[in-house]
Amino acid sequence: MSKTLERHAKLRDALILAAERSIAAGGLGALKTRELAREIGCANGAVYNLVEDMDELILRVGSRTLGRLDAFLTAAESESSASSGERLVRIAIAYCDFAAQNFELWRALFEHRMQRGKPTPDWAIGEQMELFRHIYRPLATLFPKKSAQEISVTARSLFSAVHGMVALGLEQKLIAVPLDALRTEISIIVKAIVNGLALEAQ
Amino acid sequence: MSKTLERHAKLRDALILAAERSIAAGGLGALKTRELAREIGCANGAVYNLVEDMDELILRVGSRTLGRLDAFLTAAESESSASSGERLVRIAIAYCDFAAQNFELWRALFEHRMQRGKPTPDWAIGEQMELFRHIYRPLATLFPKKSAQEISVTARSLFSAVHGMVALGLEQKLIAVPLDALRTEISIIVKAIVNGLALEAQ
Repeated sequence: MSKTLERHAKLRDALILAAERSIAAGGLGALKTRELAREIGCANGAVYNLVEDMDELILRVGSRTLGRLDAFLTAAESESSASSGERLVRIAIAYCDFAAQNFELWRALFEHRMQRGKPTPDWAIGEQMELFRHIYRPLATLFPKKSAQEISVTARSLFSAVHGMVALGLEQKLIAVPLDALRTEISIIVKAIVNGLALEAQ
Repeated sequence: MSKTLERHAKLRDALILAAERSIAAGGLGALKTRELAREIGCANGAVYNLVEDMDELILRVGSRTLGRLDAFLTAAESESSASSGERLVRIAIAYCDFAAQNFELWRALFEHRMQRGKPTPDWAIGEQMELFRHIYRPLATLFPKKSAQEISVTARSLFSAVHGMVALGLEQKLIAVPLDALRTEISIIVKAIVNGLALEAQ
């Protein structure tokens, strides 16, 4: 790699890390190009030699968050030889814990909207989809007669339901919920969904 | 009412309606004091004689949205003499339809965060809580042995789960879901939760 390219890559990494720190501290609303440029020691305009636009920068930070979430969920899975149903409960609770521990970065994943008319790039969608395997696999074991398509739809629904509980719980919208109570509730609801779906599939 | 008070009340209503139109058209991000002032024909600063701050203005618009949601859910309930379980499914689907039809105003209810350190006023929390009766009542009928506290917690969980499905589905985060497919999925998951909880309660 030439020295120029090397410097460019280092500066780009520094920019992404600075953006990550900024989002972690104050959310997406706190992200300012000028401050990032000052922090990594480059001119304001030079930021857009490093990333295409603000969307790409936020997606790159999101990519790091998703990577850590992936590792966190994998660790939760390997903890025990639980049944597939119990595994889904564990994954859901691990998701809640990760969100609580990485609140602003996790929140940014969902709050970010692409600039009007611009589609989310394929690489970012691919990374999001990749995470669904944590839910997909136990569901496929639980419901062997369902098609891959049906399992995908159920995985998405189950994720969305758990995400809703985590989001409203942690945002403290509508009555604040202590984290322990939220974890208990998630466990009850995921168990109910799994058992309810099993009843229907019989 | 004196003419001055009357004028004040009229201008305040006009401000809230102008804010509602602005949010409906472009979301919370599009709300600008200056444009609202121009639209209702008053000076920029005069806006804050009509409402305390932007938070209050947004909450007043939210209050109108919640009022319409309440009426919408009530209409959905009165459509049939369904069982309590079916009623919960209907309410969930009606919630989804309302969100789809009032996307930006519905989204603003959840996106709005009070300025740092300021609590949500009691009147706004009261209005939000009031809506839970639509879920609370059928749940109380389904689970007569559960305490009021337990039913409240379950109502909040059920709402959060449905809200998550609606939010991620309509935001088109993670694979776009056609509205019909989303309604079907909500119906499957709410039914599974109700049946799964009933199984546990036996």
